[in-house]
Amino acid sequence: MDLTAYVNENRKRYVDELVEFLRIPSISSRTENRGDVARAAEFLRAEMERHGIATQIFPTAGHPVVYGEWLGAGPGRPTVLIYGHYDVQPVDPLELWRSPPFEPAVKDGALYARGSVDDKGQVWLHLKAFEAWQKHGGPPVNVKMVFEGEEEIGSANLGPFLDQEKERLRADAVVVSDSPMFGKGIPSICYGLRGLAYMQVDVEGPSVDLHSGSFGGAVNNPANALAHIIARLKDPTGKVLVTGFYDKVRKLTARERTEVRRLPFRRREWLASAGNPPREWGEPQFHVLERIWARPTLDVNGIWGGYQGEGAKTIIPSKAGAKISMRLVPDQTPEEIERKFTAYVKKIAPKDVKVTVRSLHGGAAFLCPTDAPEFRAAERSLERAFGKKPVLIREGGSIPFTATIQAALGVPVILMGFGLPDENSHAPNEWLDLDNYHQGILSAVYLLEELGRPAAAPAAARKPAGSGGRRRR
Amino acid sequence: MDLTAYVNENRKRYVDELVEFLRIPSISSRTENRGDVARAAEFLRAEMERHGIATQIFPTAGHPVVYGEWLGAGPGRPTVLIYGHYDVQPVDPLELWRSPPFEPAVKDGALYARGSVDDKGQVWLHLKAFEAWQKHGGPPVNVKMVFEGEEEIGSANLGPFLDQEKERLRADAVVVSDSPMFGKGIPSICYGLRGLAYMQVDVEGPSVDLHSGSFGGAVNNPANALAHIIARLKDPTGKVLVTGFYDKVRKLTARERTEVRRLPFRRREWLASAGNPPREWGEPQFHVLERIWARPTLDVNGIWGGYQGEGAKTIIPSKAGAKISMRLVPDQTPEEIERKFTAYVKKIAPKDVKVTVRSLHGGAAFLCPTDAPEFRAAERSLERAFGKKPVLIREGGSIPFTATIQAALGVPVILMGFGLPDENSHAPNEWLDLDNYHQGILSAVYLLEELGRPAAAPAAARKPAGSGGRRRR
Repeated sequence: MDLTAYVNENRKRYVDELVEFLRIPSISSRTENRGDVARAAEFLRAEMERHGIATQIFPTAGHPVVYGEWLGAGPGRPTVLIYGHYDVQPVDPLELWRSPPFEPAVKDGALYARGSVDDKGQVWLHLKAFEAWQKHGGPPVNVKMVFEGEEEIGSANLGPFLDQEKERLRADAVVVSDSPMFGKGIPSICYGLRGLAYMQVDVEGPSVDLHSGSFGGAVNNPANALAHIIARLKDPTGKVLVTGFYDKVRKLTARERTEVRRLPFRRREWLASAGNPPREWGEPQFHVLERIWARPTLDVNGIWGGYQGEGAKTIIPSKAGAKISMRLVPDQTPEEIERKFTAYVKKIAPKDVKVTVRSLHGGAAFLCPTDAPEFRAAERSLERAFGKKPVLIREGGSIPFTATIQAALGVPVILMGFGLPDENSHAPNEWLDLDNYHQGILSAVYLLEELGRPAAAPAAARKPAGSGGRRRR
Repeated sequence: MDLTAYVNENRKRYVDELVEFLRIPSISSRTENRGDVARAAEFLRAEMERHGIATQIFPTAGHPVVYGEWLGAGPGRPTVLIYGHYDVQPVDPLELWRSPPFEPAVKDGALYARGSVDDKGQVWLHLKAFEAWQKHGGPPVNVKMVFEGEEEIGSANLGPFLDQEKERLRADAVVVSDSPMFGKGIPSICYGLRGLAYMQVDVEGPSVDLHSGSFGGAVNNPANALAHIIARLKDPTGKVLVTGFYDKVRKLTARERTEVRRLPFRRREWLASAGNPPREWGEPQFHVLERIWARPTLDVNGIWGGYQGEGAKTIIPSKAGAKISMRLVPDQTPEEIERKFTAYVKKIAPKDVKVTVRSLHGGAAFLCPTDAPEFRAAERSLERAFGKKPVLIREGGSIPFTATIQAALGVPVILMGFGLPDENSHAPNEWLDLDNYHQGILSAVYLLEELGRPAAAPAAARKPAGSGGRRRR
């Protein structure tokens, strides 16, 4: 019995098992779910051990990291490190869920539950792929797995773990399934993410709120001053005005620009996903996707000052502030941009208020070399599972872990995700498309095979897994 | 026994009586004090009736208006309308009071209690002046009194009362004692107040908060757009940029400018009262007092949008908003400025967000003709009580009532206040300087006399009240 047929025959069992995993409310941000998070870690460990993976639970200052390794392919063989997370987002507002978030429900080919797509389903599909290989003599590559329990709360303890266990984690490629496909039926690999420099600007004027009648006109207003500062950070077309901001920006290649324009981008659907703003907006010389994927930006994430209640209160606020973050692209670094932002704000700040700038956090942008053999292997495995060539996409968001581990291990990090953009990953009624889940398992099965092929093997030499005797490792 | 001596002999009693009035916690904003507010109204009514004033309590949709009139001077004589309020501010934070707010305490010539200066003390001093006259045959002018119970919550029901009772309220001058003196030992008449146009600007973009990574650069950010709008409302030196904003501004006369510069303005003390901002600020060609008293301004009173909590949240807020008010000077009107502001904001607003502008409330600026005979009478009465000529000042704040009643009755409204700028009128440890209270009673006694003199009487013909036979009415 070949691997593909085996996976196809077990389709229903894969869903049933995932349902059990999803019943555990492993909400990492809630203290009262601490035991559930630990239970989800144990659930994973038990499953891994069942398939011969040597596991270890690493406690951290927060929730534990579940680590596993199977080195049965042998020391000369490639090693792949699979990363995922077993914690989930909170569920409020609970009343908007059509079925309870931790009582998984299947409807019209979709599995509804908190964590279904983000990220338990995508963790489980790798375990099922490994299991399938184990039923057929084991994969041709060594496999390591890192599943963390704090992704939804910022992965604060993952960095120290990676530092500490760097030697243990050595691999030839890292695979992450925690990002969306471009659309239904469009297998995708994400090869780029933006970085982040998140700042806070505080403006202080008088030591107390003043009566705007008694003092208006003779005291600079911190909220007006803040607006002046913000207005000088970015022009109305989206160009960031911070001095030197674009110095290190790596331009998209002509080929990338062409490929972006080949994607089946549906403007109306995109606008709907963006909450139907009155109009499209952004740097006019770039495609919407380029603006999001490959251009750095600056956004006010929050702003405050003075009276925010009903009606009128006539004060000059004592202070005002804003959270302002910049999305970065290669080769900008958070350190460089934080420095430039701070210097620029200090330069333009009015002198009759006190302006403080501080960095809240930052993360590097990420770019995976698409010509790496491991990347090509991922492309082939997706093509085999979905019956079509994957598209190469980027994401506008940030996953600091990707750049960190790519830098730490010096190997390609391949973001091969099976979610859809509208699966409500952080919202009520999160769901997972069960076709994608199944094709995800197949992709993961093929990936272990493709990663085991000699790097130089020409595409013509490929042979579908199981289509005639598994290759020996 | 003459009037001055009579008032001087009763100094202690005046304080004791005021203490009883101050014990009533007539906090107009708190439902639980509703009965106390009514009790304060009854307390006033009883006192007025004791002195032969015909009183009537007018219920309103909120707290009642206490009205009284004494027309004993006769139909051919001038009539003065005295306005004040018997409600008080809340007392929180209670823990900052050094003595309980409704257990009046005298210390070092100051009376500590909520309402002592704002405005019960200044209401009571007019009653005591009337009483002194009644003990000496009655004042030479007719007297009407309007004491409201909602000044501290916006006087919402006073306008309807004035409209309805306009005929009843007919007078030759209105006197209000609810404004501060320029400083200790400096008798003052306030002849100008700024008006107000209070607006709210709401900016809407996407229908929900968006992930700033997934959408940043391709959706205009309402908070950034709001900052752009605000930055274009006023330049960094304080000049308002709204088209046509200064069209109707009446310039200070050369004499007014000279008099402003003669006032004993203490920059350091003023900066301290302004919460010690880093630097002085404002339109460079104007004196600090001119900026506050006679120049229109624009201030953000509140601004909000997106995430305001601890740490970082990477969103593009769905909306942002600001409360923005403009202080007006003669001859600007709230209607004109609301219209110009709205048109200007609509003009400069980015088209890729939805911008709504609305007016929350407004009030006209106020200017009392300083050459009116009644104004001169007030000057003379203060000079007699304090032994020095009063200074003419303005206030930067707004008392919509003043402009309303001046327009309704077509007579001068004289703001003759006996508070000090640092008497904590809306803060813990409100106090009243007992010398000012006493000199306030004397001023009010003399005012009734001075208002009774023939308008054309030259200054040389003046004779102190009671210094030799009261003038017959």
